[in-house]
Amino acid sequence: MLIQLNPTGVLDLLSQLEVDLLEQSSTSERYRLFRNCVLAVLNVGSHTDVSNDIYDKHKDFDIRLVSRERGIKIELENPPQTAFVDGHIVTGIHEHIFSVIRDILFICQKYEKNLQETKAITHMVFDMLRNADALKVNSEPNMIVCWGGHSINEVEYKYTKQVGYELGLRGLNICTGCGPGAMKGPMKGATIGHAKQRITNNRYLGLTEPSIIAAEPPNPIVNELVILPDIEKRLEAFVRTAHAIIIFPGGAGTAEELLYLLGILLHPENDKQCLPVILTGPKHSKAYFEELCKFIQMTLGDAALSKFEVIIDDPQLVSQKLKSAMSGVREYRKSQGDAYYFNWTLKIENDFQQPFYPTHEAMASLDLHLDQPKQQLAANLRRAFSGIVAGNVKEEGLNAIKEHGPYVLSGEPDLMKAMDKLLQAFVEQGRMKLPGSKYIPCYTIKA
Amino acid sequence: MLIQLNPTGVLDLLSQLEVDLLEQSSTSERYRLFRNCVLAVLNVGSHTDVSNDIYDKHKDFDIRLVSRERGIKIELENPPQTAFVDGHIVTGIHEHIFSVIRDILFICQKYEKNLQETKAITHMVFDMLRNADALKVNSEPNMIVCWGGHSINEVEYKYTKQVGYELGLRGLNICTGCGPGAMKGPMKGATIGHAKQRITNNRYLGLTEPSIIAAEPPNPIVNELVILPDIEKRLEAFVRTAHAIIIFPGGAGTAEELLYLLGILLHPENDKQCLPVILTGPKHSKAYFEELCKFIQMTLGDAALSKFEVIIDDPQLVSQKLKSAMSGVREYRKSQGDAYYFNWTLKIENDFQQPFYPTHEAMASLDLHLDQPKQQLAANLRRAFSGIVAGNVKEEGLNAIKEHGPYVLSGEPDLMKAMDKLLQAFVEQGRMKLPGSKYIPCYTIKA
Amino acid sequence: MLIQLNPTGVLDLLSQLEVDLLEQSSTSERYRLFRNCVLAVLNVGSHTDVSNDIYDKHKDFDIRLVSRERGIKIELENPPQTAFVDGHIVTGIHEHIFSVIRDILFICQKYEKNLQETKAITHMVFDMLRNADALKVNSEPNMIVCWGGHSINEVEYKYTKQVGYELGLRGLNICTGCGPGAMKGPMKGATIGHAKQRITNNRYLGLTEPSIIAAEPPNPIVNELVILPDIEKRLEAFVRTAHAIIIFPGGAGTAEELLYLLGILLHPENDKQCLPVILTGPKHSKAYFEELCKFIQMTLGDAALSKFEVIIDDPQLVSQKLKSAMSGVREYRKSQGDAYYFNWTLKIENDFQQPFYPTHEAMASLDLHLDQPKQQLAANLRRAFSGIVAGNVKEEGLNAIKEHGPYVLSGEPDLMKAMDKLLQAFVEQGRMKLPGSKYIPCYTIKA
Amino acid sequence: MLIQLNPTGVLDLLSQLEVDLLEQSSTSERYRLFRNCVLAVLNVGSHTDVSNDIYDKHKDFDIRLVSRERGIKIELENPPQTAFVDGHIVTGIHEHIFSVIRDILFICQKYEKNLQETKAITHMVFDMLRNADALKVNSEPNMIVCWGGHSINEVEYKYTKQVGYELGLRGLNICTGCGPGAMKGPMKGATIGHAKQRITNNRYLGLTEPSIIAAEPPNPIVNELVILPDIEKRLEAFVRTAHAIIIFPGGAGTAEELLYLLGILLHPENDKQCLPVILTGPKHSKAYFEELCKFIQMTLGDAALSKFEVIIDDPQLVSQKLKSAMSGVREYRKSQGDAYYFNWTLKIENDFQQPFYPTHEAMASLDLHLDQPKQQLAANLRRAFSGIVAGNVKEEGLNAIKEHGPYVLSGEPDLMKAMDKLLQAFVEQGRMKLPGSKYIPCYTIKA
Repeated sequence: MLIQLNPTGVLDLLSQLEVDLLEQSSTSERYRLFRNCVLAVLNVGSHTDVSNDIYDKHKDFDIRLVSRERGIKIELENPPQTAFVDGHIVTGIHEHIFSVIRDILFICQKYEKNLQETKAITHMVFDMLRNADALKVNSEPNMIVCWGGHSINEVEYKYTKQVGYELGLRGLNICTGCGPGAMKGPMKGATIGHAKQRITNNRYLGLTEPSIIAAEPPNPIVNELVILPDIEKRLEAFVRTAHAIIIFPGGAGTAEELLYLLGILLHPENDKQCLPVILTGPKHSKAYFEELCKFIQMTLGDAALSKFEVIIDDPQLVSQKLKSAMSGVREYRKSQGDAYYFNWTLKIENDFQQPFYPTHEAMASLDLHLDQPKQQLAANLRRAFSGIVAGNVKEEGLNAIKEHGPYVLSGEPDLMKAMDKLLQAFVEQGRMKLPGSKYIPCYTIKA
Repeated sequence: MLIQLNPTGVLDLLSQLEVDLLEQSSTSERYRLFRNCVLAVLNVGSHTDVSNDIYDKHKDFDIRLVSRERGIKIELENPPQTAFVDGHIVTGIHEHIFSVIRDILFICQKYEKNLQETKAITHMVFDMLRNADALKVNSEPNMIVCWGGHSINEVEYKYTKQVGYELGLRGLNICTGCGPGAMKGPMKGATIGHAKQRITNNRYLGLTEPSIIAAEPPNPIVNELVILPDIEKRLEAFVRTAHAIIIFPGGAGTAEELLYLLGILLHPENDKQCLPVILTGPKHSKAYFEELCKFIQMTLGDAALSKFEVIIDDPQLVSQKLKSAMSGVREYRKSQGDAYYFNWTLKIENDFQQPFYPTHEAMASLDLHLDQPKQQLAANLRRAFSGIVAGNVKEEGLNAIKEHGPYVLSGEPDLMKAMDKLLQAFVEQGRMKLPGSKYIPCYTIKA
Repeated sequence: MLIQLNPTGVLDLLSQLEVDLLEQSSTSERYRLFRNCVLAVLNVGSHTDVSNDIYDKHKDFDIRLVSRERGIKIELENPPQTAFVDGHIVTGIHEHIFSVIRDILFICQKYEKNLQETKAITHMVFDMLRNADALKVNSEPNMIVCWGGHSINEVEYKYTKQVGYELGLRGLNICTGCGPGAMKGPMKGATIGHAKQRITNNRYLGLTEPSIIAAEPPNPIVNELVILPDIEKRLEAFVRTAHAIIIFPGGAGTAEELLYLLGILLHPENDKQCLPVILTGPKHSKAYFEELCKFIQMTLGDAALSKFEVIIDDPQLVSQKLKSAMSGVREYRKSQGDAYYFNWTLKIENDFQQPFYPTHEAMASLDLHLDQPKQQLAANLRRAFSGIVAGNVKEEGLNAIKEHGPYVLSGEPDLMKAMDKLLQAFVEQGRMKLPGSKYIPCYTIKA
Repeated sequence: MLIQLNPTGVLDLLSQLEVDLLEQSSTSERYRLFRNCVLAVLNVGSHTDVSNDIYDKHKDFDIRLVSRERGIKIELENPPQTAFVDGHIVTGIHEHIFSVIRDILFICQKYEKNLQETKAITHMVFDMLRNADALKVNSEPNMIVCWGGHSINEVEYKYTKQVGYELGLRGLNICTGCGPGAMKGPMKGATIGHAKQRITNNRYLGLTEPSIIAAEPPNPIVNELVILPDIEKRLEAFVRTAHAIIIFPGGAGTAEELLYLLGILLHPENDKQCLPVILTGPKHSKAYFEELCKFIQMTLGDAALSKFEVIIDDPQLVSQKLKSAMSGVREYRKSQGDAYYFNWTLKIENDFQQPFYPTHEAMASLDLHLDQPKQQLAANLRRAFSGIVAGNVKEEGLNAIKEHGPYVLSGEPDLMKAMDKLLQAFVEQGRMKLPGSKYIPCYTIKA
């Protein structure tokens, strides 16, 4: 089956020189990246989160940019049918394809080589968001980043929708990692809230990365999609774009996000930052959050606990708190001469910016002891969970596990015990993977 | 509690002369109408559909138009709290208040006296819709009128949402009577479908009337609200605006709508009309529709059955059929030189336009025999069900029942038996009233 | 030649009932009005201002509303070619035709009978402007009414353009009687000024009336055209819409406007009104304004002189003064709780609102003596000049003069002498009629 | 005097890293360029076209980008007052400043080094226009490039306005080099034409270069300003953006443009190109065009004459011809699969793309003989006139002349004689420089 898409958006104005950059060739890594991202975007509603399975299932899928009268067309060969309604591609998905092209072209034309310097990395994150028109100059603080699991149960999912609805009623926007579960619910809820308030410039910002996009394809409600090159840039984009952060129940990825966030907020220079963080879920999630808090307290201490609030089963309260916190965010930014659309003054150490490649060796040599500076410990724990996410759903991780068996994590026995317990809970609650298969851990804990 | 609303929309440009028309005075029937409609609009999410109870509960509610610097303000005294989020009125509801003012002022300035002539009545319906900006000149046929009960069960409600979602994905708009249940579900579903398709000029058209608005308050998603003066004008507005009609399970009101529709479609001059009608519901509604069809067949004959299609448990099929029917509607209108936005050529007899006042006398003297022209029988059956709706939820009807006891309906024994059976089924399935109270029939059937 | 125009604007949504109102029939006065106004609008750029000549020249012109597929079309038979560019009607003129239809339909549906009451007349002026969407709720005071002759010389015309340019640079809008000369120049100038300031919601409001529209056809730059039923409603529309008034050199019509304005501003209740008035022209107009001031002083006294300012040859100063006066206008309106878009609090006596029909009898019996209240004298002088305008260019006046010879004006000798002198000056300066013909006075002065 | 400008447009979203690029420092050539371009833009309406004089006159002018709360502000020290109305900068000029910043930043971030390859140079021109949002994807062919002198007489100026007016009435847009004279007149005229046709997306595209911008500052009507790095890129931008070209009377610059154009159109690969060219002026320009044609015929032959048409004193005919030519342009582009917004298929040899630096040496060694391929001769003649423009008004040229005396041009005697004659005519007709000073030739012709 062959589908042609019209050149809307960024494709309108590509020169042949640029089209050539995305040309297929057996050796082109860039083409593979491009093809896989587009496939992921088309594959929304997928029932598996194993990147490799998706790629395998759609081996006969192909994409080509074709020069046609008055512009470039996209040709899709054998695209997944989930992206189509009666033979027409869903507009939201059509737009996502162009986001993929836009971001890949931008990186390969401007950021081919790896950046090392803190300032340069931050500028790149800014540059990518600006190029994607995701920085809105004249809007007030209203962007709520929602983190949480892609695999959550029905009760939790409904709860994320209710929170989204209440946020939407209060004119707040939603930013997530843009997969299913806790990344989709708040957007759906907010859509109804915004409709009732006649808000038409509503924003559903999705921040993703090539290695996760297949496992967590962006929901078509996402009306601004940005594909950052790796998880570290993506996390930086999240926290610099956020005016507040909600964390719903989730698994290893959510733990990674929370650890990254706390690691940064614990930095002395961020002491006065105004960035409200709320952990919330339905009644039955209470135990989950208690478990998580215990782990945080043991590893990062009480100071870390003071950086967020836990609210159980009260979507309205969560929304009211965040809504009324926005004026504080506004005042803080103003007092610092900082932009509302990008938190320049948030201090992020180079340690949190450098990509972590979860090879077996890198995982094995992570320094997981309690007697190190809290920030450094947070960074290392973040890397550990990041590796587990890769082992669970990312292509590179899956391949590594296939070849070498599970990652081995070792360190201070107490810490390893706590970690094991937390991960065990994630497994038991079905947070590691989408339902439908038995989860085989991609790690072993060695005290 | 006193709330002041800013003068947006129609209020921006009222002259003092016009404001005076809505002024409170103990004797003013117009003021009472105005106040009650605004109260109804504010009372969204109400858990009762007994108009009188609502008015009783909010006796201390009052509304005033106040001249203030640069325009008229609305003052609300003791408004229902459901309309507010953190002290701010929901924008959708704010707009609905202005729709009420717009339509009441329009009628009292231009249509004070009752119209008799068919042509004049149709022009008035057109004029009201035009004044409300509800006639969109440049849009293609895409308005799906959805009828069905305000009191339906959870499975049916979810089904109406799914149908709405599939319609929305196909770029179709929704028009309903704008209360809860089957009038709200399709709009919520369509909102998500429209969001995925990036449709921003989506229309959720609500057509209501002063005597039902309290029992079925418009959902804030309704982004175009028109208050027609009575059920007959409202029904005409529905069928002339519709490009297709879906009928979900419902009670007496839904039966009234179906009978009105069939009465009109059976008119020989409407033989070639292109107005697709689909009755649909989830699996468990199958018996309900079979019952209804039997009643239609017995009363209006096989010809009536040929005017619609029944589809069980297939939201996608319903939407696909209607979507592909739109080109036929377009062609038909074009071939007749008729507008897309208003079905001028649909023949509606004066009999269907004249208001029916369901006094006990009028109800008792309805001619309910099978041996009369089908169209006339449809008109009379329509009136019978209309009276029952009034007796169930409308103020005038409730008062009449309170005073004189249930309506007495009599006629040909076979017909009366069939009617009794149908109504009994409505009662048993909880379709007569919102859950929470035992339903006491407002009628007795005398063969 | 037959031209068909597509149904844009108001015609989109006419019902057959309404189309019938504008149908041709030998006896229909309304049709004649409609036809003549459309002819006038098409005849822009005409080199004569004698209404009758225009009507005579285009006897074979005809207009019909024709029902066509999906709406009403306009058919023009033998329209003047000035309205077309390469066979396509100029869009601005196309819009003006719809303004004509809109306003004539509005009047005949809502204001068929003459209004007597002051309040009702003011409401009607408001209602017509509102219906024409000429009242902008959210804009700040910025509407400068420009009066002045339709027949002015090249130097004066260039001056009006310069003033318009400077007003446009300051974000001010223009309202005129919308013919040639001083009514066109400011708009052309402002167009360039607005372009440089990137102002896109610029307003060029033209207020006209059926009896003058042929002599002074609206320039296509006019982007809001309203046809008021008579000169009295038109003058009221001018002064209630104005945030300031500029008077350029002109003839009898300009004198009428000035006398009307002063008559109103001299009313004690208007003492605190903030409505800046500037008389201005190029160097060579100095004598003209001195003459005019002398006449005003003699008739209405020094108080009248204090109501305006004369500025010679300084477009920038005129504009700066008016621009900085706008905040005063704003404050005044605010302090009175009055709208910015319509000066409700300006007191206009019924005397100034009642139509004056310049029959020979009415003209002869005008009370033109100095010993009457200033306001009353202003009203009578206004009527005298109004009659002369009619005798010069309006159909009814031209016909009356043709039949009965010149009007005879009589009164107090000193006053008549002053009037004669002023009129004589208008004649000599070529302000009575467009150049190209010798002016034969339509009046005689009898002391 | 210190003026602060708010950060609208591109400045909204600059990072500190980018601001640093435009920072003042005694050694920064980029800063000097930036400052001078901004000064030029502010200096609109200047009465001199000697770049050096302008820079000298405004030695105390300075510009700084300052980090302020929520964005970058521009600080102007002692800016020319012509850019301000009552202390507020004209919005059009405000925008031009941002165009300067946008284009300088774009070049220094992406095109620091000189490009050599034909394909790369063309892509850069495309990239700059795209970045300036000057390529409109969905518009039909309608861009008329107007070339002609910055110093023309009143009759010629009025004529360019009339042509612009007629183009505007036909919905055509204007692109010029954006200085005074023939570069301003068509835009002013078109503004009125567009207003009458209610065209609001009208385009007044100005293409300039840093070395000419001071001598020919962009008129504020220009609503899209692009600063190309040199005259060769600018000429390429003109011809690839044009759907047709009008050449009004002008001097050396106009001759340069015509020679460039003919040199390209004479290329065999451009044989089938559809690019209408009309030379036009008022009656009294007839001799001028005859002179020019003689020179073209002598140098480039009859083939060159066939590439354009001369129309004297008929603005309407010029416009009608170009309007009706647009469908041919459309068909041609379509048949080639080429874009409407950028003429990719026009062949431009590298010879015409490489910058020519008019040193005395380069000028002296130009190969000016008739016996060389026409295209090559055109390229060399283009360079000769380009050098004269530089010597007349560009800073580098003026300095060179100051130091070394006039350029010496030599070559085949007949050719040199013809050239001398043509230049002499330009001098006599006052086309070399703005009026107000005696023109001292910057060249001597040596046969």
